Amino acid sequence: MSNKIRVGIVGYGNLGKGVELSLAQNSDFELEAIFTRRNPDKLVATSKMLHISEIENYKGKIDVMILCGGSATDLPQQTPEIVKMFNTVDSFDTHAKIPEYFSMLDDVAKSSGTIGLISVGWDPGLFSLNRLLGEVVLPRGKDYTFWGKGVSQGHSDAIRRVKGVKNGVQYTVPIESAIEMVRTGKNKELSIKEKHERICYVVPEDGANLEDIKNEIENMPNYFAHYNTTVNFITEEEMNKNHKGMPHGGFVIRTGITGESTNQRMEFSLKLDSNPEFTSSVLVAYARAVYRLYKEGQRGARTVLDIPFSYLSPKSAEELRKELL
Amino acid sequence: MSNKIRVGIVGYGNLGKGVELSLAQNSDFELEAIFTRRNPDKLVATSKMLHISEIENYKGKIDVMILCGGSATDLPQQTPEIVKMFNTVDSFDTHAKIPEYFSMLDDVAKSSGTIGLISVGWDPGLFSLNRLLGEVVLPRGKDYTFWGKGVSQGHSDAIRRVKGVKNGVQYTVPIESAIEMVRTGKNKELSIKEKHERICYVVPEDGANLEDIKNEIENMPNYFAHYNTTVNFITEEEMNKNHKGMPHGGFVIRTGITGESTNQRMEFSLKLDSNPEFTSSVLVAYARAVYRLYKEGQRGARTVLDIPFSYLSPKSAEELRKELL
Repeated sequence: MSNKIRVGIVGYGNLGKGVELSLAQNSDFELEAIFTRRNPDKLVATSKMLHISEIENYKGKIDVMILCGGSATDLPQQTPEIVKMFNTVDSFDTHAKIPEYFSMLDDVAKSSGTIGLISVGWDPGLFSLNRLLGEVVLPRGKDYTFWGKGVSQGHSDAIRRVKGVKNGVQYTVPIESAIEMVRTGKNKELSIKEKHERICYVVPEDGANLEDIKNEIENMPNYFAHYNTTVNFITEEEMNKNHKGMPHGGFVIRTGITGESTNQRMEFSLKLDSNPEFTSSVLVAYARAVYRLYKEGQRGARTVLDIPFSYLSPKSAEELRKELL
Repeated sequence: MSNKIRVGIVGYGNLGKGVELSLAQNSDFELEAIFTRRNPDKLVATSKMLHISEIENYKGKIDVMILCGGSATDLPQQTPEIVKMFNTVDSFDTHAKIPEYFSMLDDVAKSSGTIGLISVGWDPGLFSLNRLLGEVVLPRGKDYTFWGKGVSQGHSDAIRRVKGVKNGVQYTVPIESAIEMVRTGKNKELSIKEKHERICYVVPEDGANLEDIKNEIENMPNYFAHYNTTVNFITEEEMNKNHKGMPHGGFVIRTGITGESTNQRMEFSLKLDSNPEFTSSVLVAYARAVYRLYKEGQRGARTVLDIPFSYLSPKSAEELRKELL
């Protein structure tokens, strides 16, 4: 019998595919199966693909399920059912609903004798860890989070609903001068417009009125009206060539004062050529932690804030102290 | 009776003074006393100053001792004695000796029923955490640590031993073009000379031969001979005006590949106007964690790699999930 951590993937979109790729880089895992709501026979894959209805047959055969559904509807439905049978890790990212999601899962996991680790990724996730570190080390200070340059799915969808738009993508771009200002430690309050701008690439339908499209996007409430928004019209070919990637990233910057007036600054940043592949890699590292916590006898819901970094590594505590401290 | 965490400081140099300042920013702590080897009556302080020989009278009255001695001789002598009576946190930073120091303290702390948290600060410390995070999230990758711009005490001492030198200070400066190269993800091996340069400010004695001083510094084995070194001669006034601070900082950069060939980058950096005040602030946050671990019944030696970030904050787990995730 193998000593590997036996994992399953639930959901085979960008995130699920990213987890499959990440597992191939981590030799202490064994991917048992990928569960999907689609017809598994119609999916091309090298891993074992099963319909989600077969998941209960794997009870006791999978140590951690890595949940790769969306936060809007998939995870709130799936996670409480799956955590009854398996330890889980997910990337639930609806910030405002985290407390209730945690509390609900904590009850189910405790009564089922499992662990449900939630909101793993980079924001929430690694950025949350850095926001916490910033405020404990520099309590007299202020932190700023900038996102991007990266594709916002919600804003891209909003563009594509505009009349005359054939295809569109929206990048959220942090404003460099705002980042530089923050780095000086001036601690000014910044409006949303001062922190980020929105850059859109639009493929218009034949004969569409470009001026109308531009106006409708720039003045769209909630999405664009409060930002500096730039609309660029491009061809379908340009769209396919230059805008099919899913880059993202961002900055968590904490500036603060120690002593009387000493300036100190901490900064964490990510530059990601693929947002889903990176998020997947974080999920896999934390799946390792879930396995260990479970082995120790821990039960219930957890977040990244509860987990020591040593649990993320396949190395022993001795190796980590020797090589990394 | 107060619910505050009762702490003591051992050692009242730059680090001890920084801890005293940091405690003033954290209202859940109460500083009971500062212990020193010097004559406490001759030290100017607002806190209670006691001779180190009185420390055992405080057994049971102090929850965590924050040890602010040096790593070369103070900590290896003091920590095993103090951890017999108190929980401790220290900034032991002799990287090569961490395994044996840990092992020795672990034995003493376990048999004494205390916790000894070692090697807290930024390197080792926050940089170690980021090196670990980098290798677990991007296992197919490479990390680079750059230090500075910052004063190196050892190199400054070496300058001051040169004949004809009245005073001197040395800054270790990361080479910007090397940082930029690393950020591109090219993963080239860099020699020590390619990563950092050394910039010296020297106040010569009256009538000293400046060319001799410059040659001796630039060719000093181990310290300078393998680096690009610049020697600047300045006056005592300039030294006092511009070089009395203790700035430091640095970068931990991890670049890696996910999937087939997707570039991903993680970066953590610090820009510190006072190295000891920042290190002290990290020590205080981790003293809070030591208190909580002890209350939970944990015993023995620990490092930052073993401690969940939630233990660093005075906020409840609920507050942290709501505000920071």
